[in-house]
Amino acid sequence: MATLGDISVSAAINLLSAFIFLIAFAILRLQPFNDRVYFPKWYLKGLRTSPTNAGGALVTRVVNLDFRSYLRFLNWMPEALKMPEPELIDHAGLDSAVYLRIYLLGLKIFIPIACLAFAVLVPVNVTNHTLDKAANVTASDIDKLSISNIPRESQRFWAHIVMAYAFTFWTFYVLMKEYEKVASMRLAFLASEKRRPDQYSVLVQNVPPDADESVSELVEHFFLVNHPDNYLTHQVVYNANKLASLVKKKKSLRNWLDFYQLKYSRNQAQRPTIKTGFLGCRGEKVDAIDLYTAKIEKISMEIAEERARVAKDPKSIMPVAFVSFKTRWGAAVCAQTQQSRNPTLWLTEWAPEPRDVYWQNLAIPYVSLTIRRLIIGVAFFFLTFFFMIPIAMVQSLASIEGIEKAAPFLEPIIEADFIKSFIQGFLPGIALKLFLIFLPSILMMMSKFEGFNSLSSLERRSATRFYIFNIVNVFLGSIIAGTAFEQLNTFLNKSTGEIPKIIGVAIPMKATFFITYIMVDGWAGIAGEILMLKPLIFYHLKNFFLVKTEKDREEAMDPGSLGFNTGEPRIQFYFLLGLVYSTVTPFLLPFIIIFFAFAYVVFRHQIINVYNQEYESAAAFWPAVHGRVLIALVISQLLMMGLLSTKGAALATPFLLALPVLTFWFYRFCQGRYEPAFVRYPLQEAMMKDTLERAREPNLNLKGYLQQAYVHPVFKSADERDDDDIDDDEDGGMSYLSGKIDHSDTVLVPTKRQSRRSTPAPSRVSAGSSPSMSEERGHSAKGGPPPEP
Amino acid sequence: MATLGDISVSAAINLLSAFIFLIAFAILRLQPFNDRVYFPKWYLKGLRTSPTNAGGALVTRVVNLDFRSYLRFLNWMPEALKMPEPELIDHAGLDSAVYLRIYLLGLKIFIPIACLAFAVLVPVNVTNHTLDKAANVTASDIDKLSISNIPRESQRFWAHIVMAYAFTFWTFYVLMKEYEKVASMRLAFLASEKRRPDQYSVLVQNVPPDADESVSELVEHFFLVNHPDNYLTHQVVYNANKLASLVKKKKSLRNWLDFYQLKYSRNQAQRPTIKTGFLGCRGEKVDAIDLYTAKIEKISMEIAEERARVAKDPKSIMPVAFVSFKTRWGAAVCAQTQQSRNPTLWLTEWAPEPRDVYWQNLAIPYVSLTIRRLIIGVAFFFLTFFFMIPIAMVQSLASIEGIEKAAPFLEPIIEADFIKSFIQGFLPGIALKLFLIFLPSILMMMSKFEGFNSLSSLERRSATRFYIFNIVNVFLGSIIAGTAFEQLNTFLNKSTGEIPKIIGVAIPMKATFFITYIMVDGWAGIAGEILMLKPLIFYHLKNFFLVKTEKDREEAMDPGSLGFNTGEPRIQFYFLLGLVYSTVTPFLLPFIIIFFAFAYVVFRHQIINVYNQEYESAAAFWPAVHGRVLIALVISQLLMMGLLSTKGAALATPFLLALPVLTFWFYRFCQGRYEPAFVRYPLQEAMMKDTLERAREPNLNLKGYLQQAYVHPVFKSADERDDDDIDDDEDGGMSYLSGKIDHSDTVLVPTKRQSRRSTPAPSRVSAGSSPSMSEERGHSAKGGPPPEP
Repeated sequence: MATLGDISVSAAINLLSAFIFLIAFAILRLQPFNDRVYFPKWYLKGLRTSPTNAGGALVTRVVNLDFRSYLRFLNWMPEALKMPEPELIDHAGLDSAVYLRIYLLGLKIFIPIACLAFAVLVPVNVTNHTLDKAANVTASDIDKLSISNIPRESQRFWAHIVMAYAFTFWTFYVLMKEYEKVASMRLAFLASEKRRPDQYSVLVQNVPPDADESVSELVEHFFLVNHPDNYLTHQVVYNANKLASLVKKKKSLRNWLDFYQLKYSRNQAQRPTIKTGFLGCRGEKVDAIDLYTAKIEKISMEIAEERARVAKDPKSIMPVAFVSFKTRWGAAVCAQTQQSRNPTLWLTEWAPEPRDVYWQNLAIPYVSLTIRRLIIGVAFFFLTFFFMIPIAMVQSLASIEGIEKAAPFLEPIIEADFIKSFIQGFLPGIALKLFLIFLPSILMMMSKFEGFNSLSSLERRSATRFYIFNIVNVFLGSIIAGTAFEQLNTFLNKSTGEIPKIIGVAIPMKATFFITYIMVDGWAGIAGEILMLKPLIFYHLKNFFLVKTEKDREEAMDPGSLGFNTGEPRIQFYFLLGLVYSTVTPFLLPFIIIFFAFAYVVFRHQIINVYNQEYESAAAFWPAVHGRVLIALVISQLLMMGLLSTKGAALATPFLLALPVLTFWFYRFCQGRYEPAFVRYPLQEAMMKDTLERAREPNLNLKGYLQQAYVHPVFKSADERDDDDIDDDEDGGMSYLSGKIDHSDTVLVPTKRQSRRSTPAPSRVSAGSSPSMSEERGHSAKGGPPPEP
Repeated sequence: MATLGDISVSAAINLLSAFIFLIAFAILRLQPFNDRVYFPKWYLKGLRTSPTNAGGALVTRVVNLDFRSYLRFLNWMPEALKMPEPELIDHAGLDSAVYLRIYLLGLKIFIPIACLAFAVLVPVNVTNHTLDKAANVTASDIDKLSISNIPRESQRFWAHIVMAYAFTFWTFYVLMKEYEKVASMRLAFLASEKRRPDQYSVLVQNVPPDADESVSELVEHFFLVNHPDNYLTHQVVYNANKLASLVKKKKSLRNWLDFYQLKYSRNQAQRPTIKTGFLGCRGEKVDAIDLYTAKIEKISMEIAEERARVAKDPKSIMPVAFVSFKTRWGAAVCAQTQQSRNPTLWLTEWAPEPRDVYWQNLAIPYVSLTIRRLIIGVAFFFLTFFFMIPIAMVQSLASIEGIEKAAPFLEPIIEADFIKSFIQGFLPGIALKLFLIFLPSILMMMSKFEGFNSLSSLERRSATRFYIFNIVNVFLGSIIAGTAFEQLNTFLNKSTGEIPKIIGVAIPMKATFFITYIMVDGWAGIAGEILMLKPLIFYHLKNFFLVKTEKDREEAMDPGSLGFNTGEPRIQFYFLLGLVYSTVTPFLLPFIIIFFAFAYVVFRHQIINVYNQEYESAAAFWPAVHGRVLIALVISQLLMMGLLSTKGAALATPFLLALPVLTFWFYRFCQGRYEPAFVRYPLQEAMMKDTLERAREPNLNLKGYLQQAYVHPVFKSADERDDDDIDDDEDGGMSYLSGKIDHSDTVLVPTKRQSRRSTPAPSRVSAGSSPSMSEERGHSAKGGPPPEP
C-alpha cells in the first residue's frame, strides 16, 4: 500500500501534467488562428468575427505577440465563473446549465461531508494503534486515518454508524433541494416567453393501417373526432432514410471536388488526376475534377428522383405523424392520455424538439419495439459480463506467439527487442483501450436499435448502460480483481450475505488506488479536455485542405457538445467513490472535491465558449442523475454493512439495515414528488400560458408557425434548391429549419434570445453511427460515404 | 413417502367428506326456511319472495316434503352452469364474471399441460429403474412417475426441458388470449349503455389550503379556469367519521331495543329488565325497554348536533372533492393529466364507484401517504418473516407448564388426562390457526392504514400481501421445513445459486404432501364453502331473536361476497403448485384440475344465488391475477433449474435460463399491451359514448344526475329523516343512494339491469374493521358499538 509520500509524488506528477495542459491551453487559445477552435460558440451565435479578417499585420493576425496576455494565463477561470446562471441558460440552454449543477451538487454534498469526516472520523481513527501493532502488515499512513485502524469489536464503530446516518441525511437534503430547484427551473424554462413548436405538438406513433384512407387523412379524421376543439394541423413523416444517405454521399463527393479544385488552384500547371480502381490506387488515371463533377451530377439526379419518389409513393409515408394543437392545453391533454382502445395504437407522447428528433426510429411498430428491447437487454448483459472474452482472444492473437503463428514471415522483425517489448507491453492494453474507446458508440448503437425516437433519450439510455458497465467492470472490477464474468461466478456461488462482506473488506485497501485514479482521470483528464487537441488538429487540417470561403471555415469548426452519455456516468463514478469512502477513508474526499471544483470551472468555460448543444431537452435527464446518486448511496451503505460485520460489530448491522430501506423510500418519495415535472406537463401551466398568449397576440397565425416545423430535414431543403451548400447538409437543413422558425419567431415576439441556431457541423451522434444505422434498417443505404479528407 | 394406496385412502376420505357436505347442502337448500340463506341474491334483486309467505300448510312452508326433489340432489350443478356469461355479467356484475374466469384459466392452462405431461413425461419417467435399484430409499409409486426416477446425467432430461418450454409457451398463449378477452370485456362493460356517476367524475385529492377561499370555492375556480369547457359541478367531502360511528351506535342500540320489545311481546307478563353496571351483570336493575328508548333518544340528539356541526364547521370539510364534468371525455382528460405545477397537489384520479369509495381514507395528505407506505412495508416484512415469534410465545404460554406457572390453582384440573392431552395437542395449533384466521383482517387493516381510497384497491393490495405470505410461509415453509425466519437466515448464508437447488431438490419429495393439501383444502374446503354454515347459523339466530318485519328479515340475510383478498391468493396457490409440479410430478395435475373444475361450478352457483358484491371495479384486478400466474411460472422455472443442476444435467441450465428471461419479457409486453385498458380510459371510447349520448338524449339534465352522487352516505340520510330504518344504517344509506340513482336512471334509459342495489347488511369490509379504523384516525370515535345481539 502506498504511503503518504507515494501519494504526494503521484499528486505532484498529475498536478504538473494538469498544469502543463493548462499552460498549453493558455498559450494556444490566445493565438488568433486558433480562435475558431476555442471560441466556436461565439462564432455560431454570430457575436464574434474572425480576427484574421481584421486589419493589422499578418503576423499579429496569426500569432498573439502581446506578452502581457500570457502572464494572466489563468484568467479564463474567473471569466468562466462570471456569467450568471440566467444568462448562461439564455446563452447555452437549460441542459447545459443544469449539467453544470451536477458538479455543484458534488461540491454541496462532499464539502460538508469532508469537514464532518475530518472533524470526527479522522481523530477517531487515528488515535488507535491497531495497525502499529500488527507488524506483519505494512500499514501506510493513509490507512492509519481509515477505518482499518480501529480494532475489532471496538465501540468506536458507533462513530462511523452515526456518521453514516449523518451523511445519508445530508445527501437526502441536498438531493431534495436540488431536485426541487431543477424542477422549478425546468418549469420556468418551459413557461418562458419563447414559443416553441414542441409546446403545441404531439408525436403520434403506430397509426393503424387503413384500407380506405391515407395516413394523413386518417390522422386528421381521428384527431378531428377525438380532439374536436383542439386539433389544429398535422405533418406526416416520410421514410427519407435513403434520401438522407444520398444527400450525405453527395456532400462527401463535393468535399473531394473542393479538395481537388483547391489543389488545382494552387498548382495551375497540372490538373489533379486520380485512379478509378480500388481506393484510388489501381486502374485508369482520370482527371479528378471532371470525375467528381460528373459523379456529383449523377447523384444530384438520383436525389431528385428519390425525392420525387418519396413524395409520391404512399408506401414511403410512415404510420407516424406530428399532430399540432391550437393550444398548449390541447397538446398537454393529448400527450398525457390514451387515445385508442388498443393501447398499442395511436401512441401519443410529447413531441421532442425538432432538432432532437431521431428520424430513423420513428416508424418502429410496438411489437418490434418490445422484441428489440429484449434482444438489447440480453446483449447488454453479455456485453457487461462477458466482454473480456473477445478481448482476451484478440490479446492472445496480438501476442508474439499469435503473430508468429498467423504470419511466420514477420518473425525476424518482431523478434527485435524493441518491437517485441512493444507488442508484449502495449498491444494487449491497446486492445482493451480500443474497446473502451468504442464502448460509448457501441452503447449508443444499442440504444438506437432499441428504438428511442429522440437524441436526448438515446443519450440518457446510453448513459444508464455506461454507468452500469462502470460499476460492474471498473468499480467492482478494481476492488475484487478479476473479470466481471469471474465476479458473476463468485457471486452465484457465494451467499447473499457474503457478497457485501467480500467487497466491504477490500474497500479500505483500495483507497490509494482510487486516489491515483482520481488524480489521473479526474485532474489531468479534465485539464486535457480543455485543450481540445482533436478538434484543434482537425480544424487546422480542414482549414488547410478544404476551406475556401468563410462559410467553409465555419463548417470546419467542431465545437462538439457535452456528451451526456459519456460525461454523466463519469461524474457519477466520483459520487460513488465519494460516498463509499466517506465513512471508510475520509482522506479520499478532498481529492474528489478538487475534481468537482476543477471540472466545474473547466466545463463552465467549455459550455460558454465551445460546446454547442445539438438539442434542448429542458433538463429531462435530472431524474436519472438523482436516481444514480441514490444508487451510489445504497451501494455505500451495503458495503459499510459488509465491512462492519467482518469487524465484529454485528450489533451495528440492524442499525445500518435501516439506511438502504430509508434510501429506497426517499427515492420513491422524490419520484412521486418531483419526477412528474420531468415527464408530464401540468395543465395549469399550459392554461396560464395559453391565456397570456391569447391576450397578447390575439391575431397569431399559429397554423403558419407550426405547418413546417416537423418536416424531415432532407425535405426542408427541397423548397430551396438554389442554396445548395446548405441544403445538401443533413444537419444544415435542420439548422436552416430552425433558423427559419427563429426568424418568423422574432417577427412576432422580439426576444433577446437568439441561440436557436444549431451547429452546422454534422451532428456528432448521427454522424458517428449512421453507417451502422443504415445496416440496421435493412441495408437500405448500402455503401456508406467515403471518409472525409 | 406415501404410496398410491395411501393417496387413495386420503382421496376417499376427502371425497367422502366433500360428498357429505354436498348432501347436506342439497338437503338444507331445499328447505323453505333456509331459502334466504341459500338464495339471498334473488331476494336482494326482488325476484324471489319468501316461500313462508305463500299459502299452504305450515309444515310445507318450513320443510320440503317432496321427496323426489332430494333424488336430484346434484341438479344445482347443471343449473349453475346454464346461465350464459352476458346474463351473468348483468346479474352479478363484471367482477364476479371475470373472477370465475380465473378458474377457467386454470382449466385452460392445466388440461392440455396434463395431457401432454401424461403422454410424454410419465412414460419417460416410469421406464427407468433408478428407484428400484436404490433399495435403501423407500420409493413410492408416485415417485416412480416423477422426475426422481430418472438417473443422474441421463439424456432423458431433455424431455423435461422441452416440456418446460412447451408448458411455458402454452401458458403464455392462454394468458395472452385471456388478458385480451378480459380487457375487451372491461371496455365493453364500461362502454355499455348504463350511465354511471363515476364515468363523469374525478376524485381530486390534496386541494391546497387557501387563506381567502373555502375548499368548495377553490375547487370550483380551479376547474373553471383549467377545464373551462368541461367542468360541470363538484361535491366536497365532509369528515363524517364521528357521525358515522354515532349512527352505527344508534343502530346497535335499536337492535337491543327490538330484542327486548320482541321478548316483551312474547311474554306480556313481565317487562324485561337489565342491570346498568358492567356488561349488564352488576348494578341497579332497570326496565330494559325504557333504558334503550332513552338511550336512543339521547344518541339521536347527538347525531342531530353532530350533523349540524359538520355541515357548518369549515374544519370538517376535507381538502378533497369529487369533480364532475360535462362529458366522459372531460373526465377522462382530467383523470389522466397532471393539474398543477406541484405534482403532490390537485391529484386527480378516476372516481371509484360511489359504493366503492372508502370514505375514511380520502383526506390523507401526500407526505403522510408515503410515510405510511414505508411503515406498512417494514411491518409486512416483519409480519411475513417473524410472525412465528409471538405465536411461539403464546404457544409456550398455552403449554401445561405455562398455565401451571401462571395460575397454580388450576393445576388439579389440567393434570386430568383428557384436558392435558387437549391442551398439549390442540392449544398450540389453535394459536396458529387463530392467527391465520385473523391474517386477512390484519392485512386488510394494513391496506387501510396505507391509505387506499376504494374498497377494491384495498382488497387488491391485501390479496397481493396474502399471496406473498402464502408463498413464503406455506409453499416454501412446507418444502423446506422451518419458519420463514429460519429460511431467511438460510438464504442469507447460502449462495444465490444454491437456493433454487435446495428448494428444487426438495420439490419431488413433497408431491404427496401437496396432493393431500389439495384434497383437504381444495376439494373438501370448497364443498364446505357451499354449505355456508356460518351465515346459516347467524341467519336463524337473528331470525329468532330480532326479526319482526319483512325488512328485518331482509337485513338478517348475510349473502357475503367473493372476498377477492382471500379467495384469489388461494387460487393462485394452485396455479403455483400446478406449474411447479407440471414437469416434476405430473401425477399432481389431475388433482388440481379437479379442484379448478369443482370450484368453478361451486363459485358459479354461489355467485348466481348467494354472493352480493359490494362494489363493481370492472375487473380492475386482472393485471394482478395475470402477474401472479407469471410469478408462479418464474418460480417453477427457477426451481426446475435448481433441480436439474443437482441431477448432473448442468448442460441444461443455459437452456432453462432463457425461460425466466422470456417470461419477464412476456410480462413487460403484456403490461404495455393490455394494462392501460385497466388503468386509463381511452379518449376515443369516451368521445364515442359522449356523441351517442348527445344524439340520443339531447336534453339530459346531467347536473341533476350528478349533484348528489358522491355525498357521504351518512349525509344522504339527512334528507330523508322520516325513513329512519334505512337512514340509520351506514350501508343502508349507501344502498339508498344507489337505489335513488338507479331509479332516476331507469326513468331515462330503460334497461334490463336492476342489480345496482347493494347489500343492506353491514359491509363486510368496513364493518369488520371500523373500530380499528377509528383508532387509527386519532380516536375520533371512541367507544365502539356493543356487540350485536
